[in-house]
Amino acid sequence: MTRSVDLNADMGEGFGPWPMGNDAALLDIVSSANIACGFHAGDPVTMGRTMDLALAAGVAIGAHPGFADLQGFGRRRIPLSGPELTHMIQYQLGAAMALAQARGARLAHVKLHGALSNMASENLEMATTCYRAALAVQPDLTLVVMPQTALEQAARDLGAATASEVFADRSYNDDGTLTDRSQRGAMIHDPQVAADRIVAMLRDGGITTTGGKLLRVPIDTICVHGDGDAALAIARQLAASLDAAGYKIAAP
Amino acid sequence: MTRSVDLNADMGEGFGPWPMGNDAALLDIVSSANIACGFHAGDPVTMGRTMDLALAAGVAIGAHPGFADLQGFGRRRIPLSGPELTHMIQYQLGAAMALAQARGARLAHVKLHGALSNMASENLEMATTCYRAALAVQPDLTLVVMPQTALEQAARDLGAATASEVFADRSYNDDGTLTDRSQRGAMIHDPQVAADRIVAMLRDGGITTTGGKLLRVPIDTICVHGDGDAALAIARQLAASLDAAGYKIAAP
Amino acid sequence: MTRSVDLNADMGEGFGPWPMGNDAALLDIVSSANIACGFHAGDPVTMGRTMDLALAAGVAIGAHPGFADLQGFGRRRIPLSGPELTHMIQYQLGAAMALAQARGARLAHVKLHGALSNMASENLEMATTCYRAALAVQPDLTLVVMPQTALEQAARDLGAATASEVFADRSYNDDGTLTDRSQRGAMIHDPQVAADRIVAMLRDGGITTTGGKLLRVPIDTICVHGDGDAALAIARQLAASLDAAGYKIAAP
Amino acid sequence: MTRSVDLNADMGEGFGPWPMGNDAALLDIVSSANIACGFHAGDPVTMGRTMDLALAAGVAIGAHPGFADLQGFGRRRIPLSGPELTHMIQYQLGAAMALAQARGARLAHVKLHGALSNMASENLEMATTCYRAALAVQPDLTLVVMPQTALEQAARDLGAATASEVFADRSYNDDGTLTDRSQRGAMIHDPQVAADRIVAMLRDGGITTTGGKLLRVPIDTICVHGDGDAALAIARQLAASLDAAGYKIAAP
Repeated sequence: MTRSVDLNADMGEGFGPWPMGNDAALLDIVSSANIACGFHAGDPVTMGRTMDLALAAGVAIGAHPGFADLQGFGRRRIPLSGPELTHMIQYQLGAAMALAQARGARLAHVKLHGALSNMASENLEMATTCYRAALAVQPDLTLVVMPQTALEQAARDLGAATASEVFADRSYNDDGTLTDRSQRGAMIHDPQVAADRIVAMLRDGGITTTGGKLLRVPIDTICVHGDGDAALAIARQLAASLDAAGYKIAAP
Repeated sequence: MTRSVDLNADMGEGFGPWPMGNDAALLDIVSSANIACGFHAGDPVTMGRTMDLALAAGVAIGAHPGFADLQGFGRRRIPLSGPELTHMIQYQLGAAMALAQARGARLAHVKLHGALSNMASENLEMATTCYRAALAVQPDLTLVVMPQTALEQAARDLGAATASEVFADRSYNDDGTLTDRSQRGAMIHDPQVAADRIVAMLRDGGITTTGGKLLRVPIDTICVHGDGDAALAIARQLAASLDAAGYKIAAP
Repeated sequence: MTRSVDLNADMGEGFGPWPMGNDAALLDIVSSANIACGFHAGDPVTMGRTMDLALAAGVAIGAHPGFADLQGFGRRRIPLSGPELTHMIQYQLGAAMALAQARGARLAHVKLHGALSNMASENLEMATTCYRAALAVQPDLTLVVMPQTALEQAARDLGAATASEVFADRSYNDDGTLTDRSQRGAMIHDPQVAADRIVAMLRDGGITTTGGKLLRVPIDTICVHGDGDAALAIARQLAASLDAAGYKIAAP
Repeated sequence: MTRSVDLNADMGEGFGPWPMGNDAALLDIVSSANIACGFHAGDPVTMGRTMDLALAAGVAIGAHPGFADLQGFGRRRIPLSGPELTHMIQYQLGAAMALAQARGARLAHVKLHGALSNMASENLEMATTCYRAALAVQPDLTLVVMPQTALEQAARDLGAATASEVFADRSYNDDGTLTDRSQRGAMIHDPQVAADRIVAMLRDGGITTTGGKLLRVPIDTICVHGDGDAALAIARQLAASLDAAGYKIAAP
């Protein structure tokens, strides 16, 4: 029996004259593209072109909404009211849906970006607001969640389809949170190490933490990056190792 | 037999802390609301709240996309390429569709705003690009067009449903264009005069120009404004006069 | 001997097509105008026109920088790094200085706006960063500070000229902070009450708190508002009461 | 006797997370940096860091204001009124002046960017408005002008210091305008050809056109680009050839 797993990557993160990342190379590897929706990155043309590339590569497209903060790339924590969150999510999601629709395509998933994701992962009310907003617009969206966070709980409470995500290039604390980037070993730079880790996690059915614990969580999708040669090398090695281990890379 | 005609007005033209217009008063009068989509006015929360008000008043909602120019309120002519136009229209339209969908509602029409409308009314290629973009996202949208312009021709060429629009407070040149605002008599300020004019146009089946000509054009919808007491007075008088003349005010 | 006190008000808070406040009426009353610098409100033309009005009224002009957040009107707390704060302040201040310079005028003061002010008032490092940034551009600026906050301390540490500010329409806790707006009595709506309070504070040399304590603080400038008839009525009554009490209203 | 000529390049054209160009490499070559001012590119931090690099390299800094159009990189022609132009120029210039002042430095020149420059080069009233605005803020600014355009005439009429500019990588029509990019030979890609051309122009005291004409114009500064290896190679070869021809590269 072939098992399958999803590889996802953030894409379409250019804006106007400024490109970002290596979308073309990543689209040969991943099965799901998280497309920036114009608030933290990604103007309308960039969104459309990224969808064209993804669809041509047979990669599932999803929305990647973030805070309205181009200069901060959506990485600054901006406190918003519930209605502000709701409308901001629906606005970006709708924009992405329309661009997909114009291509005869449909969004498969939504993944929150940057500080919006970080804040919601720590705050059940905020996570619920964001996800409820998204599902009100397209009820069959798969919600990409980080296991053992408010995101996962909110998605579960709402009865939504979820994809439980791990990161290929990050280590985890014993409580399931990501190791702070300031700590040694937080970032995994070696492609073989990263790939072996992920294959082991899939085999073991959970995340291996820096303390050596195994946290049993579903692993439906693996986040890879494409900024810089090193990140791309990890994505490529991971794809090769998954193939060798008998995994098919496919959207959920 | 009761005849009906649509009254439309631009709404939701505030942004963040800045309100604009008198949406609540206009919603008691009009049958269609053209809702700004966030680029020239109308942040996501303002869009949603305007939809709430319109739906509560039984007023049809439509999208009112414009150039990305808050400071210029979408009134500056900004040259865009075909793909830029296409994606810009679809982005704004999709955002509005999603906010409508979250309310269990649906957009009925689209009307281009400001300089985007002015430029497209003079340029068949641009008008076609804008309308094709909109219809690719929602094929049953009614396109609000100014008669005898490229907007009308593009809509007809695309086989779209249209609503042919006249302005309650503007006079027309013999070629069907609006009299330039710098000319005496371009703006009609007297509510009774404006209302009588529109009732006469409906009766005669066309626009009466400043030169006394009757241009036979369909009149499906009448644009009214709500900025200032004078504009609101025109809208109110027009509604009363239409009622007296046996017209029902209703969306197309 | 005539004593004098400054009245200051935020101005130029429109943006593009959207006006805000009642600058013309306030300029007949106040002696210092805090002019929004384009990030949370106030486009370049609005800034210039506000300066023209202020200078014609003999009112001192100052910069009122805020976070780059039009939609949130600079009232959302946005965490920025030190260099981001420094450059953001200097950018806005420089823009205002140039517009003043083009009128043969000069900025007299700087007052932080909204969340930027609130955050800096609680954080000495942030307050110092903001003020050091401003003074590096124009060393003789008067810094408008709220007494007993990090703003006051930072300004003192930097050896800057300061204007210690109280609010005409707010009550104070015993520790000198403003009573939270959610509490009864936090906002003072009665013009006579507000005016009497301020005259008493000037006479007593300090702020009277909700607990009846007198906090001895310098009172150099009084902040008034112009949004709404009530706010304007307070400003007018305050000016009349100060005059009756023998105070001249003048910039520091 | 050593003759000198200025080499200038646009810099600081990143925004937030998006870098652009190769400022560090160019700063080893050029003598003047035209720094984007935040409207078409260049957030405040990017502006400041670019100034730091330029000052460390002994390169003169100037302001490079453009239209408020990040997505279009200031290359879209946006019609503005005279007051809008005036305030927009002064706002950006002031921001740059303040960031320079905070470094103990001073702006040496101003060069209009993109569509703002193109439109003003064809329109004496617009050019005059832009330059008058700039000089009102800093009267000793050198205005970088394209010879035989409205820019040059406006600068002369205003009695301003000017630097007459030619492009290292573009060919010229007989009337002194740049050959349209769509035409063969419009862009010069060969470093040696470009360098020889410029040295010949300096020797001959004018621009050699595609028709073989010599247009006698002053040549004070040469614009080079740094986007891509080819552009950088031209800049390097030009610097070498100028040195070999006995020219010192120095700001005006």
